[in-house]
Amino acid sequence: MKILVSEVGPRDGLQSIQRTMPTPAKHRWIRALAEAGVQEIEVASFVPAKLLPQMADAGEVVREAVKIPGLTVLALAPNLRGVQDAVAAGAHKVTIPVSASRAHSLANVRMSCEEAIESVGRICQFRDSLPADRRPTVEVGLSTAFGCTLQGEVPEDWVFEMAERVAKKGADSVGLSDTVGYANPAQVKRMFLRLQRELGDRAGGAHLHNTRGQGLANVVAALDARVSTFDASQGGIGGCPYAPGASGNIVTEDLVYLLESMGLDTGIDIEKLLAARSILTAGLPGEPIYGHLADAGLAKNFRRAAEQVSS
Amino acid sequence: MKILVSEVGPRDGLQSIQRTMPTPAKHRWIRALAEAGVQEIEVASFVPAKLLPQMADAGEVVREAVKIPGLTVLALAPNLRGVQDAVAAGAHKVTIPVSASRAHSLANVRMSCEEAIESVGRICQFRDSLPADRRPTVEVGLSTAFGCTLQGEVPEDWVFEMAERVAKKGADSVGLSDTVGYANPAQVKRMFLRLQRELGDRAGGAHLHNTRGQGLANVVAALDARVSTFDASQGGIGGCPYAPGASGNIVTEDLVYLLESMGLDTGIDIEKLLAARSILTAGLPGEPIYGHLADAGLAKNFRRAAEQVSS
Repeated sequence: MKILVSEVGPRDGLQSIQRTMPTPAKHRWIRALAEAGVQEIEVASFVPAKLLPQMADAGEVVREAVKIPGLTVLALAPNLRGVQDAVAAGAHKVTIPVSASRAHSLANVRMSCEEAIESVGRICQFRDSLPADRRPTVEVGLSTAFGCTLQGEVPEDWVFEMAERVAKKGADSVGLSDTVGYANPAQVKRMFLRLQRELGDRAGGAHLHNTRGQGLANVVAALDARVSTFDASQGGIGGCPYAPGASGNIVTEDLVYLLESMGLDTGIDIEKLLAARSILTAGLPGEPIYGHLADAGLAKNFRRAAEQVSS
Repeated sequence: MKILVSEVGPRDGLQSIQRTMPTPAKHRWIRALAEAGVQEIEVASFVPAKLLPQMADAGEVVREAVKIPGLTVLALAPNLRGVQDAVAAGAHKVTIPVSASRAHSLANVRMSCEEAIESVGRICQFRDSLPADRRPTVEVGLSTAFGCTLQGEVPEDWVFEMAERVAKKGADSVGLSDTVGYANPAQVKRMFLRLQRELGDRAGGAHLHNTRGQGLANVVAALDARVSTFDASQGGIGGCPYAPGASGNIVTEDLVYLLESMGLDTGIDIEKLLAARSILTAGLPGEPIYGHLADAGLAKNFRRAAEQVSS
């Protein structure tokens, strides 16, 4: 079985770090990730530079990344303006953050949940107005789908009502994001199974955080629910400012190790992935970079999924 | 559903740390764990004090721990002599480490696998010679059942042959230990299901390490295989000297958080468990103590398993 690991470090990771990684370092890192076999990378966020100076070079990063053969270049955009800029730069796919928590929606994108749904509609209309070869895939990530640090509980029925509404507006896929690291495996399995029941082939992947150490446990539960796309971030960078000392996104290296050990083919070469991590580390001197695998090394009995087939 | 979390920190954790925790600090920590609702604690290891000076007070620690009402006091003993000392001190249960890896068996207990199996036989004969009210439960933990840093691969058929042999010698339960953090969820599920098929009600629990960040992911897989007993260590202390920088055992706080969030009742109060962790930290000033939950805090929407029943 094949699993798509979507690397979000250059966007989710770098925008959460105070300092700005120089553009050439971003290029080197993205290229190294692609060389390791990563097939999809969220390379930038199209937001005003005064809000996120770390992402001021978004257009340049996308224009460079689309030169890499075979790579799906993904960009985050919170609204139509951002999507237009991402498409102008050549992004193959855009991801729209839509919060299921009303409090987080206002804090994050300054829109109510209903306004955010309407915004997805305008984005899909814009997509449909483009010539076929320039149309991006539109992915919605439902933020705080498992709970919210501002609001606490987020009702599950509301999450699925939003999922259905953005799918009806034309989103190609709708994923569930554990933005603040609140999810547990029982909930992850239950909610992804329901997502697939209600959205069919528009059901998207899992964006999980490791804030409370539950990230890979939630991956196993999502796999049980037949989820086949996972976001992750090299070195676990990114994540939640509300959780001091805790790592953010699930760590790509640890995730790929998990999947490959289980016989699930990611197409990623772990040794080369660790080499890409070194490029990240060099580009962000002094920043804390997480990950167990990088500390402990591969197990002596580790075999990639592709090598297990014959056994 | 009820899950037994067996705290191994006072044994597995403390014996892996260079400095010795003072005996009164051990007493305080064990008492605090029991007050948090931990029902079973591996409090000491009965080995020669010159080999493990951290465990020189094993008898005293057991004699104090058995005064705590309702607590199952567990002690590790590598051989008959250790079991006799543990029983003399009043331990309710002994755990015998038996390595499935031939190389690790010689390194760890200076016996071949076959000699270790014979030793379990002598231990069970000793148990049977005792009056009924002093007979300890004899548990075997099959070390390196998922792979070995010395030997690499450990053949699964051999693991189950050993499991069957020690069960025939009279072990009350036989668990599987991922001593060096090599296990993956697919393997964990497959092997625990087979253990139950082959050993029936003598199939024991899971002792998992987090060396490569896969600890709680493996717990989810073990739960899928209906495993209901898990070892864990407060602050993740203990573990593998071969994995510098990596944490050791799965962290009790993170495990209990996982289980309770999923609606699985551990009987443990997380707030009190975090209080016990503070006692551990105070008893080992300067030592690295791990754990995501302690860093990040409970989720706003967290509810204990017992509180979820009505929903």
